[in-house]
Amino acid sequence: MKTYTASITVTLRRAILDVQGKAVENALHSLHMPGFADVRIGKHIELSIQAVDADSASSAVREACDKLLTNPVMEDYHFTLQEIAPVEAA
Amino acid sequence: MKTYTASITVTLRRAILDVQGKAVENALHSLHMPGFADVRIGKHIELSIQAVDADSASSAVREACDKLLTNPVMEDYHFTLQEIAPVEAA
Repeated sequence: MKTYTASITVTLRRAILDVQGKAVENALHSLHMPGFADVRIGKHIELSIQAVDADSASSAVREACDKLLTNPVMEDYHFTLQEIAPVEAA
Repeated sequence: MKTYTASITVTLRRAILDVQGKAVENALHSLHMPGFADVRIGKHIELSIQAVDADSASSAVREACDKLLTNPVMEDYHFTLQEIAPVEAA
């Protein structure tokens, strides 16, 4: 078994109105930072996963995203995987 | 003025207990996905910004992060900037 870390970014689909982003945008303007626009707020999830290889780690992460971490109707996601080198015994 | 998009990732500091991440980890285990651990949940913010050059865009994003988007006591952030090419008139 190898250990991987996955870094998952979940974003609201473009067609969905992002009310939280709009509120943040208005707050930025109120704070005298007028140059900002199109603020969109999503989630960033980091986790570690044990798997036999990168392919099975990737499919496990995809399963977790589809079943729990994202709402496939409203959200898109992408992720990167990185293998963690095991600590060698001295 | 040029237009840039910034992609900001906000993560809870390592020393802070991530209760939301822990709840998600337990939920993954309940869904018969035992291989996951160390789940940490953060924010991902995308926005566009008008600035004269990349340096001033970068400092504006840093100011927005420090003043509004992140809690510097509990959170770390990093971001990437990308210039959006202006649409040429035909």
